[in-house]
Amino acid sequence: MEERARDDRAEIRDDVLNLEHGHVADVVEHLNDQEPEDAAELIGKLPDERAIEILDQPEFEDSAEVVANLPIERAVALLAGMSADRATDLLTEVEEPLRSELLARLDPETRNAVSHLASYPEGSAGAIMTTEVVSVPTTWTVGDTLRHIRVVEKSRETIYTICVLDPKTRALVQTVTLRRLITADPAAPVLSAARYSKPITVTPTTDQEEAARLFSKYDLLAVPVVDDAYRVIGIVTVDDIIDAIFEESTEDAQKFGGMEALDEPYMDISFLKMMKKRAGWLCALFLGEMLTATAMQHFETELEKAIVLTLFIPLIMSSGGNSGSQATSLIIRALALGEVKVKDWWRVALRELPSGLALGAILGTIGIIRISVWQMLGLYDYGPHWILVALTVGTGLLGIVTFGSMSGSMLPFLLKRLGFDPASASAPFVATLVDVTGLVIYFSVAVVILSGTLL
Amino acid sequence: MEERARDDRAEIRDDVLNLEHGHVADVVEHLNDQEPEDAAELIGKLPDERAIEILDQPEFEDSAEVVANLPIERAVALLAGMSADRATDLLTEVEEPLRSELLARLDPETRNAVSHLASYPEGSAGAIMTTEVVSVPTTWTVGDTLRHIRVVEKSRETIYTICVLDPKTRALVQTVTLRRLITADPAAPVLSAARYSKPITVTPTTDQEEAARLFSKYDLLAVPVVDDAYRVIGIVTVDDIIDAIFEESTEDAQKFGGMEALDEPYMDISFLKMMKKRAGWLCALFLGEMLTATAMQHFETELEKAIVLTLFIPLIMSSGGNSGSQATSLIIRALALGEVKVKDWWRVALRELPSGLALGAILGTIGIIRISVWQMLGLYDYGPHWILVALTVGTGLLGIVTFGSMSGSMLPFLLKRLGFDPASASAPFVATLVDVTGLVIYFSVAVVILSGTLL
Repeated sequence: MEERARDDRAEIRDDVLNLEHGHVADVVEHLNDQEPEDAAELIGKLPDERAIEILDQPEFEDSAEVVANLPIERAVALLAGMSADRATDLLTEVEEPLRSELLARLDPETRNAVSHLASYPEGSAGAIMTTEVVSVPTTWTVGDTLRHIRVVEKSRETIYTICVLDPKTRALVQTVTLRRLITADPAAPVLSAARYSKPITVTPTTDQEEAARLFSKYDLLAVPVVDDAYRVIGIVTVDDIIDAIFEESTEDAQKFGGMEALDEPYMDISFLKMMKKRAGWLCALFLGEMLTATAMQHFETELEKAIVLTLFIPLIMSSGGNSGSQATSLIIRALALGEVKVKDWWRVALRELPSGLALGAILGTIGIIRISVWQMLGLYDYGPHWILVALTVGTGLLGIVTFGSMSGSMLPFLLKRLGFDPASASAPFVATLVDVTGLVIYFSVAVVILSGTLL
Repeated sequence: MEERARDDRAEIRDDVLNLEHGHVADVVEHLNDQEPEDAAELIGKLPDERAIEILDQPEFEDSAEVVANLPIERAVALLAGMSADRATDLLTEVEEPLRSELLARLDPETRNAVSHLASYPEGSAGAIMTTEVVSVPTTWTVGDTLRHIRVVEKSRETIYTICVLDPKTRALVQTVTLRRLITADPAAPVLSAARYSKPITVTPTTDQEEAARLFSKYDLLAVPVVDDAYRVIGIVTVDDIIDAIFEESTEDAQKFGGMEALDEPYMDISFLKMMKKRAGWLCALFLGEMLTATAMQHFETELEKAIVLTLFIPLIMSSGGNSGSQATSLIIRALALGEVKVKDWWRVALRELPSGLALGAILGTIGIIRISVWQMLGLYDYGPHWILVALTVGTGLLGIVTFGSMSGSMLPFLLKRLGFDPASASAPFVATLVDVTGLVIYFSVAVVILSGTLL
């Protein structure tokens, strides 16, 4: 595996020696490994078409540098040739005053597209769509459409999904795929190649995660983005959706791990930036967890009388956190996949209550057995009331694991209801929540069971 | 948002009243909500082409029931019409002896494809590929190829990526896209429409996660699967890759939450199955966490002398777990995205050591401040040696957070090196690992700092 990867890499290097003919993704990888100025110089020497192709790759890191190092006329020409969504992303990285100057020199059509695209919030369909759509009126034939596609192909991000518009209102009537077009009768009206009565669409504010679910459900290659009047303002393509899914999964995983999403590859992010993303949540959790010390202080008398109880504090607390972490990860994914909605919270509660009780009963039984075995084999002496101690630990586990499952499964709903990202219900967050309550549950159980004997 | 979703749903319901013309994904959703027997009966009444289209959807849940309820000749006809990868999945769900009977009656070509596909392990490119590929010899022109595509379109999963083969060896020479074909000169040789010198391919054993990374990097719509002799044995399409990415993210999230992957939607899985997936890890972690009780027993003398130390046990343990959870989620994602490789472990260690020290210093300082403020404001009395107690807590935090970051970041590498899934390095797993060691670190620090005073 490692061996093969090295071979591939060697071949790729040979390929990109020829910047003009290597696969553009490999060229980008090669350029990313170089100093930004060197990359800019190399791109400056390439013909326009190839330079545009490289700049159009979202993976290329030094696009702002390239534009800054080129004569302004050339920079404008390259921007105009790029897909509008990538040109927009590039321009946000260019510093002022160059940015305004470039914008001012762009042709009105591109400038318009760029300023529109820049206005959509990150993570929305509007932010990942491009404005270069193939659209034809309903009055055209299949043959007309195919001829049109051949003419405009170079300047469109996708030609596999064609929007058919009402010739008067320019509203979207239907989408047809290239696949159906090339097998249809060229003399037939273009709508004859359409399949379903209603095209799948999104709006510019549709969440990219929601858009990704549509791609998955309907096996789409592209989806038109429409405004309120059902006019097509852009199109989201499957390659951007794949990047969005990877990005969202990474963000969710990092949030679930108990930190802010990095938004940059782990090896590339600066040390200080990473500290900021990690220290914030770590401190917040630490402050929350301080309540455990307060809870412990509250039960100080019980602690002094029955030190044997302290032996099981870590065991009990962690079990609550673990069951909570399981429940949370289940519900975060179910929400992300659209398997459950916020209004289903009570259905989930009805599943998690028996789950928590069953899991708590299992762990509680193991805990009682552990104490009994150690006591009877003489491995440790839990005192004359060891049976009651074992019972306290068992009952405590039952209560805490149940509480962990319930709060772990409800927290993502609560966060979503309050407008936060449910993925912020991280494993450490749930553990902290359960730790504090868990201590109170444990000591309360102890007071009930052990009062009159140890306490 | 909720409001709009409800409207959409009502429209969808109207559509699927007409099973024949609604969008197939909506029809499948509708059928999944019904009893399997009813769904089977409805499909039995549809024309072959539509029935095949529905059975071809991986989201359709009752396909085995449908096949079992149909006359065997019709079942065989539908299977032969389905894409080979879906027919294979369907047949694995059909019970014996019906399965063997169906296989025996299939035409040799389909039977061959099915038995080949069934042999690839889950999660491999072989398991998600289909065998219906459009391939043409290098000797054909663009026009020949387009005519061929029009003829075979109906029986191929994708026609957007065409494999060009050596006419003698049948080895893959190049891939061309439909996009380039329809804009190329029909009289030119088919290879004139190819772009790069080397096609992107996978082997049947390539991991589906690795394949997904290729789709993301090279913006692919499909990738040919080749054998050792570079002969095309199948093709993986982007819709299957999207499903695979969703599936892998869900599996990773659930594993990271400290359980086995469910492999079924949360609301659909049976209670007992879910218990099995959750109880296993929960018990394993519980048994591991029992070592904390052993560690506490070991430090019993110190505990009795200085009960004040117990107050901070939950706080200190959880901080180690939290920093470990952050580091683990970072590294699991970086490994999944291919940002770091196993051989980079020492680079990561060199980043995590200073990260852990910095984060530990921050939390340690907050801890010392907390104790000092409480003491000086008279909120709680930590005894005459409170400064030493604060120092113990602060130093303990520094050590434990550093240890948490280091072990949390190294565990995924270790698991991957040993051949396990790095995502099994769950937040609860890391927390358990750090809890036990954390207690030992804390008490060791206490012995050094407090010996002669409290201890």
